[in-house]
Order: sequence, then C-alpha cells, then structure tokens
Amino acid sequence: MIPRIPEFAADAAAAAQRALDAKTKPRGSLGRLEELACRLAGIRGTPDLGTLDPAIVVCAADHGVAAEGVSAYPPEVTGQMLRNFAAGGAAVCVLARQARARLVVVDLGVRQEVPDAAILSRRVRAGTANAAEGPAMSEADMRQAVSTGIELADELAEEGVGIVALGEMGIGNTTAASALTAALLRVDPAAVCGRGTGVDDAGLARKRATVWRMLEANVVSPYDPLGAVAAVGGLEIAALAGLVLGCAANRTPVLLDGFITAAAAMAAVCVEERCGDFLVASHLSPEPGHRLLLDYLHQEPLLDLGLRLGEGSGAALALPLVAAATAVLAEMATFAEAGVSDAEA
Amino acid sequence: MIPRIPEFAADAAAAAQRALDAKTKPRGSLGRLEELACRLAGIRGTPDLGTLDPAIVVCAADHGVAAEGVSAYPPEVTGQMLRNFAAGGAAVCVLARQARARLVVVDLGVRQEVPDAAILSRRVRAGTANAAEGPAMSEADMRQAVSTGIELADELAEEGVGIVALGEMGIGNTTAASALTAALLRVDPAAVCGRGTGVDDAGLARKRATVWRMLEANVVSPYDPLGAVAAVGGLEIAALAGLVLGCAANRTPVLLDGFITAAAAMAAVCVEERCGDFLVASHLSPEPGHRLLLDYLHQEPLLDLGLRLGEGSGAALALPLVAAATAVLAEMATFAEAGVSDAEA
Repeated sequence: MIPRIPEFAADAAAAAQRALDAKTKPRGSLGRLEELACRLAGIRGTPDLGTLDPAIVVCAADHGVAAEGVSAYPPEVTGQMLRNFAAGGAAVCVLARQARARLVVVDLGVRQEVPDAAILSRRVRAGTANAAEGPAMSEADMRQAVSTGIELADELAEEGVGIVALGEMGIGNTTAASALTAALLRVDPAAVCGRGTGVDDAGLARKRATVWRMLEANVVSPYDPLGAVAAVGGLEIAALAGLVLGCAANRTPVLLDGFITAAAAMAAVCVEERCGDFLVASHLSPEPGHRLLLDYLHQEPLLDLGLRLGEGSGAALALPLVAAATAVLAEMATFAEAGVSDAEA
Repeated sequence: MIPRIPEFAADAAAAAQRALDAKTKPRGSLGRLEELACRLAGIRGTPDLGTLDPAIVVCAADHGVAAEGVSAYPPEVTGQMLRNFAAGGAAVCVLARQARARLVVVDLGVRQEVPDAAILSRRVRAGTANAAEGPAMSEADMRQAVSTGIELADELAEEGVGIVALGEMGIGNTTAASALTAALLRVDPAAVCGRGTGVDDAGLARKRATVWRMLEANVVSPYDPLGAVAAVGGLEIAALAGLVLGCAANRTPVLLDGFITAAAAMAAVCVEERCGDFLVASHLSPEPGHRLLLDYLHQEPLLDLGLRLGEGSGAALALPLVAAATAVLAEMATFAEAGVSDAEA
C-alpha cells in the first residue's frame, strides 16, 4: 500500500539559492521566503518551479469519542459544517477564494451523509467507534482511508496541482490527534492536550482523562504508526496520512495546517521518514501538541497568529507566501539584467 | 502643515468583533486575523470594510551620509534600483503584482534623476547633505518633503485607495533611520545600529561611529521630531512621516514595512500621538532598532520571516493577510445563516 518516496533533491534546492543570489537584492535578504523557495525546489526536484497551482484538501469524519463530551460543540456540527463548506460560507472557503486555491472537501465518514455535488464522497464508515472503549476502526477501514488519501494525491498530481494544503473537520478530532500524538511521541497526554476549539477547564480535564482511557483501551506503539491511527485516530486522520505519503511520492509539497494535520503527518513520517522532507508548516497553533509535533518534524512554521480554527485555514493563509516565493524566483531581475551594481562590485 | 488626526473608532472595532463572533467558527479562533479586522474597522470608522484597495508607496532618495561607507552597496544603486522598479524587476514589483496592489514609486531626491513615466517625480533636492557634518537638509526642504507625503495620502484616499503600505529605497538610509531612532527614543546608537542590507563587521563599526558623529554634529530632540528628521533623517523618511500623518487624517490604514518606515512613523507619532492608532506592523526585521521602535509604537508584527530587504517587501507580503481579514468579515456565514449549532446551544 505504501508508495515509494523519492529523495529530496538537494541539488535543485542549491540551484534555487544560486538563482536567488543573482537577483537584485542583498543575498539572503528575503529570509525565510528564500528558504521556502529552495525547499519547494528540492521537493519538486527542479529550481524552475513556475507557479504551483494550489489545492486545499479538507478531510472530514465523525468521531465516536465525541460522546465523551470532549468538544465545545455537539457532534452534529461536523455534518452541518460540511453543508457550510458546500455553500461556500466557512472560513476555509473564504480563504481558499482569497488564495485562488481549489477547495476539495472529502467525506471519509461523517455520521450522516451530506449529499452535495461539492463534497467528494469517499466514505469508509459512518464515523468511528468510541476509542475510549476500544479501537476506533478496524485495520481494513484504516487501510481504506489511507489508500483513499494516497489515491487523491495521485489524482491531484495528475490534474496539475503543484501544492496540497491539508485541512480537516471532525468534532472530537483534537482528542483523537492528542491520543495519536501521545502514542507516536511517547509523551504524557497532559503535555499534548489543549482546549481545541475552546473547551472550558472541566472539558479539558475530561479530554485528558479520555485520552488516558484511549491509550489504556488500545495497544498503541510508534513502531506501528498506522495501527495507532486505527486504534485512536480517525478516518480523516488516516486519509491525511495517506495524502502525505501520496504527495511525497508525487513530489507534491504538503502544506500543513494545525495540530491534527501535523499528527497525521507524524504518522506518515513514522511509516516512511523521507515524507518529512516534503512538508511545509504553515503556522503554529496554541495547541500544546502542535509545537511538540513540529519540533519532531524539524519544521519551523511560517506564521504564528494564534489560529485555532482548523479546516485548513492556517494553510490557506500561508499559500500567498508560497506564491510569493515562487514568483520571486521566477520574475525578479538579476543584477546583470537590471544593470544594478552588486555588493561585491 | 500638520492635518487634524481623528480618533480611533473603538465602537466600530467592537462592532467588527461582534460580527466575527456570529460567524461559523469558535469565537476568537482566527486569532490575530480577527484582531487585524477589528483594528482596520477602528481605523476606517466602520465594521463594513468591504475590500481595501491597496497601494504600496515606495519613497526614494539619496543620502549624503553614504559617503562615509556605511552601506554594502555604492550610492548609485539608489538610481539603478529606481530603473529596476520602473522596469518591474525588483522584489517589491513582483510582490505588488502578487498582492494585486498598485505600486507608486516616488522620487523625493535621488541624486541623478531617473526620467521614467513609472516614477512619480516629487524631487525636493538631489539627495541630502552628509549629516555627519551638519544638517542633512534645511527646514524648508524637510517641510516640502513632509507636505509631499501628506498630499500623496490625500490623493490616494481620493482615488479610493483603502490601505497604504509603505516602502523605501535609499542607499545609506538605515544609517539615517538609526540616527533618527537614537534621537527620538534617546537610546544608545549601539543598541539601534544593525547590518542593514549586509555590512560586515568593519562596516558596522563605521556605521555606529557615523551615527555618533551625526548626533554630535546636529542638535536633535524628541520634542522637535521633524527637526530631527531634517537634521539626521532623509528626504524619503520625511515624506514617509508625511504619508503617515496624511493617511491617519484620511482614516487610511498604514501598513509599515521594516526599520526605516517604522522610524518615519515614530517621527509622525512624536508629532501627533494619535497617528499610532492608524498603523499596522507587517513584519519584524533583524535590525535591532526595528524591535525597539515597534515596542514604542505598541505594535506586534504580523510576520517574522527574517526579511531585511526594504522596498516595502515585508508590507507587500502582509497584504494578503489584510485581504483575508476583510474577506472573513465580509463573506463568512453566520451560525444562523448556515444552520450550524453554536457552542452555547
């Protein structure tokens, strides 16, 4: 099931830096924008990046563990928000339009199906089981969800998409991502759990206790990352891990959003370490587990704006930086072309 | 000469927050993007921001103090870069196109005039005198440059521009901005001076010594901020201070770029404290004086990407965040409109 992941093209990254060094600006003066351009070149395998057509892929599913009262919102909000995505009224819809990105909303297993042409139906099952009482899904379900992500990555690459921004929707999924992170990084759930979309103190205590129960009710290990996804993760998390694997195989850069997409990427990196080279972290959220994951993934986020919405909203906000990085590489004049004296002159 | 500056409309900012709180997202979950939308509403005096058409105004001039060898680049680069701006090959040209912003390049006093229709000629004099030996310019020259900035702000507001991003070009101008910052904040030049576009250790030592000489050769005081601009500043810095005053008078948000535009804004705030409410800091540069100025201006930058190019490049990179903030306010569905259950439900 797992595709072959190519090597990061360090030579293409170095060629991009040489091209940037010839542009009419002090060397390195565009800071992390230059790093970003070089990283994208290494991922794509060429310094001639052109324009990277962006797609934002929002994977949605319901979580049985939501029954434990771990979210500030009732479980039916997952389906309601899918309708909101289809109607174009959600934050990620607005931000996708701003970034001129294609928005792909995928239903991996929302409890009540939302029949709408704007939603890609790739349903594995009608939500997961309550992982505090046993595995969230079977291994077969997990494999189907991961494969769906891999196939989607292939389809998008074939259609000319040059960068995939990840997003997610699923009431209860910061709890699932917290359990998965605690399992993969072998850290205390208390160090991982945050307020998600905004639980109060009692809710946070319930969430921590629930994550402990999820880890006790299941056998999880960083040496079986996809098994951990099946046990305590979610259908959308499995699909996101598949998207990371599939994008890496296609040399498609993956723009992470927040905590949940980072947990899915961590699972993919545990499966195949090379995936890590194909990631770009868009932003840092206030979820404590997010910083932990980005450190493990050796990722420095581009933005730090206190975003904690999910949906791919942070990734969407970073897409203009990606467009700017590629445009600088493609369009800026060199010292020679512009007749500008260089510092060494 | 100084226009009347209106008050920040705290009621409009609060109305924007109420509108955001009704949108289909957890309250406050878009973090600093929500703060930005509210700040813009307070500046414009209405929560109905619509789309803010952006202009990037790059003010350019030459500096007599460049003769002291304080820059990694020779002084003729100012004029050469103006030609590069006119031809569309400079970083800010690429980033302005990405942000769909109008680019206005204004010659306040480049030594050798660059005759090109793409450059707005508002020349006060052919570069400043060497401020290490006496005043950079006369009071009359300073007034003309400041007035030019105020008039430009009026013209742009009349033409429907909704936000002005500041930029600058002038070899030697981090030295001028360092002297101005030391004068206005009454801090040690050593705490202010940085490597600008990239001087080496010897260049940095020369720069610090030059700033001391500028402060010794001139009478400067925070109680006469425009006098300090005339003595140790620059023609483009004076015009930028005028732009801040003029934009504030028109309720046009001012998006700062790096250290030099912040020094100019500081001068405007010393003239009329209310100007500070009309500023938005786009990014934090590695210049040590920049952080000092932003702290004095109570500004938290949106981006921190290690940018040290100037030209308005950092402000251009933050324009998509401005567009996103206004789009979220204008376009997102409310809980009621979308039929989504709220957390309180």
